[in-house]
Amino acid sequence: MQTRPFAALILAAGKGTRMKSDLHKVLHPIAGQPMLGHLLASVDALGAERKVVVTGAGREQVEAYVAPRGVAVATQEPQLGTAHAVQQGETALGGFDGDVLILYGDVPLVRPETMQAMLDRLNAPDAPVAVVLGFRPHDALAYGRILAGADGTIVKMVEYKDATPDERAVDLCNSGLMAVRGADLWPLLAKVGNDNAAGEYYLPDIVMIARQAGRASAVIEAEPWEVAGVNSRAELAGVEAEWQGRRRRAAMADGATLIAPETVWFAFDTKIGRDVVLEPNIVFGPNVSIGDGVTIHAFSHIEGAIVAKGAEIGPYARLRPGADIGENAKVGNFVEIKKARLGPGAKANHLSYIGDADVGAKANIGAGTITCNYDGFLKYKTTIGAGAFIGSNSALVAPVTIGDGAIVGAGSVVTCNVNSDALAIARGKQEARAGWAATFREKMAAKKAEKR
Amino acid sequence: MQTRPFAALILAAGKGTRMKSDLHKVLHPIAGQPMLGHLLASVDALGAERKVVVTGAGREQVEAYVAPRGVAVATQEPQLGTAHAVQQGETALGGFDGDVLILYGDVPLVRPETMQAMLDRLNAPDAPVAVVLGFRPHDALAYGRILAGADGTIVKMVEYKDATPDERAVDLCNSGLMAVRGADLWPLLAKVGNDNAAGEYYLPDIVMIARQAGRASAVIEAEPWEVAGVNSRAELAGVEAEWQGRRRRAAMADGATLIAPETVWFAFDTKIGRDVVLEPNIVFGPNVSIGDGVTIHAFSHIEGAIVAKGAEIGPYARLRPGADIGENAKVGNFVEIKKARLGPGAKANHLSYIGDADVGAKANIGAGTITCNYDGFLKYKTTIGAGAFIGSNSALVAPVTIGDGAIVGAGSVVTCNVNSDALAIARGKQEARAGWAATFREKMAAKKAEKR
Amino acid sequence: MQTRPFAALILAAGKGTRMKSDLHKVLHPIAGQPMLGHLLASVDALGAERKVVVTGAGREQVEAYVAPRGVAVATQEPQLGTAHAVQQGETALGGFDGDVLILYGDVPLVRPETMQAMLDRLNAPDAPVAVVLGFRPHDALAYGRILAGADGTIVKMVEYKDATPDERAVDLCNSGLMAVRGADLWPLLAKVGNDNAAGEYYLPDIVMIARQAGRASAVIEAEPWEVAGVNSRAELAGVEAEWQGRRRRAAMADGATLIAPETVWFAFDTKIGRDVVLEPNIVFGPNVSIGDGVTIHAFSHIEGAIVAKGAEIGPYARLRPGADIGENAKVGNFVEIKKARLGPGAKANHLSYIGDADVGAKANIGAGTITCNYDGFLKYKTTIGAGAFIGSNSALVAPVTIGDGAIVGAGSVVTCNVNSDALAIARGKQEARAGWAATFREKMAAKKAEKR
Repeated sequence: MQTRPFAALILAAGKGTRMKSDLHKVLHPIAGQPMLGHLLASVDALGAERKVVVTGAGREQVEAYVAPRGVAVATQEPQLGTAHAVQQGETALGGFDGDVLILYGDVPLVRPETMQAMLDRLNAPDAPVAVVLGFRPHDALAYGRILAGADGTIVKMVEYKDATPDERAVDLCNSGLMAVRGADLWPLLAKVGNDNAAGEYYLPDIVMIARQAGRASAVIEAEPWEVAGVNSRAELAGVEAEWQGRRRRAAMADGATLIAPETVWFAFDTKIGRDVVLEPNIVFGPNVSIGDGVTIHAFSHIEGAIVAKGAEIGPYARLRPGADIGENAKVGNFVEIKKARLGPGAKANHLSYIGDADVGAKANIGAGTITCNYDGFLKYKTTIGAGAFIGSNSALVAPVTIGDGAIVGAGSVVTCNVNSDALAIARGKQEARAGWAATFREKMAAKKAEKR
Repeated sequence: MQTRPFAALILAAGKGTRMKSDLHKVLHPIAGQPMLGHLLASVDALGAERKVVVTGAGREQVEAYVAPRGVAVATQEPQLGTAHAVQQGETALGGFDGDVLILYGDVPLVRPETMQAMLDRLNAPDAPVAVVLGFRPHDALAYGRILAGADGTIVKMVEYKDATPDERAVDLCNSGLMAVRGADLWPLLAKVGNDNAAGEYYLPDIVMIARQAGRASAVIEAEPWEVAGVNSRAELAGVEAEWQGRRRRAAMADGATLIAPETVWFAFDTKIGRDVVLEPNIVFGPNVSIGDGVTIHAFSHIEGAIVAKGAEIGPYARLRPGADIGENAKVGNFVEIKKARLGPGAKANHLSYIGDADVGAKANIGAGTITCNYDGFLKYKTTIGAGAFIGSNSALVAPVTIGDGAIVGAGSVVTCNVNSDALAIARGKQEARAGWAATFREKMAAKKAEKR
Repeated sequence: MQTRPFAALILAAGKGTRMKSDLHKVLHPIAGQPMLGHLLASVDALGAERKVVVTGAGREQVEAYVAPRGVAVATQEPQLGTAHAVQQGETALGGFDGDVLILYGDVPLVRPETMQAMLDRLNAPDAPVAVVLGFRPHDALAYGRILAGADGTIVKMVEYKDATPDERAVDLCNSGLMAVRGADLWPLLAKVGNDNAAGEYYLPDIVMIARQAGRASAVIEAEPWEVAGVNSRAELAGVEAEWQGRRRRAAMADGATLIAPETVWFAFDTKIGRDVVLEPNIVFGPNVSIGDGVTIHAFSHIEGAIVAKGAEIGPYARLRPGADIGENAKVGNFVEIKKARLGPGAKANHLSYIGDADVGAKANIGAGTITCNYDGFLKYKTTIGAGAFIGSNSALVAPVTIGDGAIVGAGSVVTCNVNSDALAIARGKQEARAGWAATFREKMAAKKAEKR
């Protein structure tokens, strides 16, 4: 079956009042990516030729997000219903005459496979004028109902409030998503009226209008979770939970151990290898790739990082953007890595900040080491050679280079480069005052007693 | 409708054996506040004129908690049933003749609205002698049943074991909570007998005693979760979960994003603004106020802190009592703030301890900075001026003042004040020993080889 | 009732393909212990005389794990069914003629009590030839069914696919676990055929073979969760969740408060005292013992540690193997303790690494203190005396001893021993350059401007 070129028209003009947010509803993220981004990724994967978002209030926010993604923005103002919203996209589509896939910016989880199925159905030999995406919810509530034949040909679409008891007993509901032949869409929309209680122009009306003209439409079905909409923060959390649950199950099916799956949060694009072990409580931000055999211990926070095969991360490790952890390297507790490479087998096991750095293979970064990479204005680089040993509680004042195999004594503040195989020490001389502590204690005890 | 003055009588004499605890049952906390405290807060909100707690064993613990809250304590010893328990409160109520609201110390979630509804009903024109709080549980189990007319007038109250099959089929159960006219309460209690299997004096008996004297009582209904009792740690966890679930939903309804609501734990008094984003795994202790637009990243622990508009907290930030984080300020990973103010736009992003300090606007606290605020006896203050830059891994030995715009070199131990716009450096001089590391490695390798 | 000696035969030859793992399926851990280890612990508790594991691929991994535990390993290659698998264990059992308890390496949660009940039933006066462990799942699906009399005597065992509708309506299912008299087992196995769709030799066939010879078998029942099998990482997570849920409920029943039980992960051998409070998000590794009255704050990670009565741990505390925390001692945020003793009342409250150390009673370890215990080759010990005070941000270069009551000045790098009651200071001298910061800012601002 040949699919014709298609355009994606995403409706996003709803006010989102219940979100109580200054951020446009469709820009609220699921798994670290705006809802709108999920939809754009899906239609891009299917090769959409044109992409239009129809917005209302907050157009600037939406425009700023979609502009770099080749998406046109149309405005619906005032908002007179979904049919009216689609009409506002006509100009932005600029005479495009392929199929039009109508999506909703606050219904982000529709799978590309489902979108493809809608387009495929639209191009089936019986040539429906429109394909409606239906679903069978656990509780059909007040959703509009779809009456259809066994082959999916739609007999009637009816709003819940207008439905007879028999019609209400039908469990196939209308998600609102549609695919329509572009050549038919605009003429049909022009015939939609607003003679209803809300005085709105409803998109589903085109199905019955076409039918009266002898043109059939078809329904195909999605899983209910795919068409869940977001109108409140609670629904946002619900869709996030659904997404995370699916991603976790996929990770396990692919060969990762999640000791407590419900406490691992993936980002939309997290890549996880085989025989990866994820302990409880791990948060992934965007742009992370985890190699085979990696163990990530509890309470780790990982974002914008590459972790190679066999590495061990955490507990309490924070990998920030630009962290590049080599094979079998170790990043331990209370360690933050930012824009830094750790070579194979390198270790930073305790209480360290490694930023803007390049650490050679098998180098050992002692507890409490800090790369001083910032002077309040610019960032500077620290280079640590292969096999170097940085003593605990050292400060490496960048720009600075520690040569291969060099040793930095514990507690040093290193401001000058250290040659390969050399020792550098930079600390004060130890002085002792015998009995001082005993005297101090007496004095302080007396002082405290006085205060009472 | 006018409500008469009322007194709250809280029964808390149960031994709580199943808690297996040295702490009195009613002092076990929900959302960081003892169960008893939840009830006291509710009756205070309704303007209770008198408050009495009836305790048994562990009276001292309860007394220590309630004494500063204007609550009288009565003792029930031995414990001869709920009617007997209420009688023990009579003296402490000192002739109070308004309404008496009878609550249970281990039933902490009853809403003030429900308590008010009980008192309102007691003062309705038909003047019932008592109002019983009923509920319809998912599974009515062995709860006592309430048979009532459509208007709530109680026809019969019956213990489960004495109930006929028809009576057991009734799903309206007795929570035990009651509101009773004070003038009627004591005479009625005096008529309660203990002719039953347990030999106890049961409070609900007053309803049937009054009815036999031609005085009606009424039932009103609560949600089952409101009247859930705590007799074990598992039930304590269950009530905590119920409370947290309600608080999370309220936070979302008010405009906060909770990416994983089930992993955010609020305290009883947490205040959260609009467009606040809470990442997974955040624990709030008491006395926290979070401003609009604040983002709190994962794994943060916040207690006794004020966080102003637009600030960014965490991941792994610990704010302790007295933390006062200014607008757009940042507290990053592995940073602890205690009794310290961070001015607007100030930053403490990595691995720091800032205690007993005042940090000026836009000051930058480098990674690994420690305020040395304690000498083993007293605490001292660190003052950091606006726009100051504290180099990484510095120790600021309080009392000490760093002036506005001053810079402290990385790795410094600052013991003397630093003037505004000055640079302070306090660290050892760097020395190098060429080839030392290579020699050391050879020596150690030999030593290790010897050991084998 | 006297139980005869018994041997445990654990089948573990399944390929575990769906695990997608290089680790043998039965070595995947539940609660920090391989599934196989759970079974071995259970049969050891019952005093098994012999233990045999039958493996297929990955024999070496299994052998390496069980060898130190007195377990013989047999190989099943090729794999021709469960009866065939049991036969492969005959040689390893070496003529043992007591009872044989047949278990599955991927069914790890069977309770010792249940195993004992199987053996007891086998030794009951009616002397069944075999005891089958049945269960009644929520959904009986395609499990084999057991038809049995009221006394548990098995009438028929039937595979689901061979069962009549009436037989399928029976809800008693076959778990596969059996106890069989050793003297009967081998002759019965020899009669099992493979005339079935899969061409496999099925162990349950021995029941019907014995019955045809006039020998009865009996069924006893387990809870469904006990016989849950693990064939995928999702099922592994499911069994882990079941185990954790039971352990959490047991901890609460024993008198520990778990504020959010679903976020506490116990290890297989965690010991918890009474009136212990566990805040949300705590991970226990193996070999931990927590004393009475201990509070563990959120986000703590505890492994191989002893924590004495009244101590306070966390939040964000990491106790590693060898941590030994004394009575009323405190380990605070971002503190790692490894192979170190903290005496009674000692404190390490902030941002520290204490490794290979002995800290005396009531010593105070300041924020940011690091024990420098490693030189890249060997580990060295730090000894801190009772009542010593280690100033913040100090590095203690081991081997080193700080005497009782000694004080180390903040920011010191201590390389020499410090006498009791003495003060040691080892830091650079503070220098100031007036106005330097102001000049620097101008210069840098100019530099940044140039770059634009």
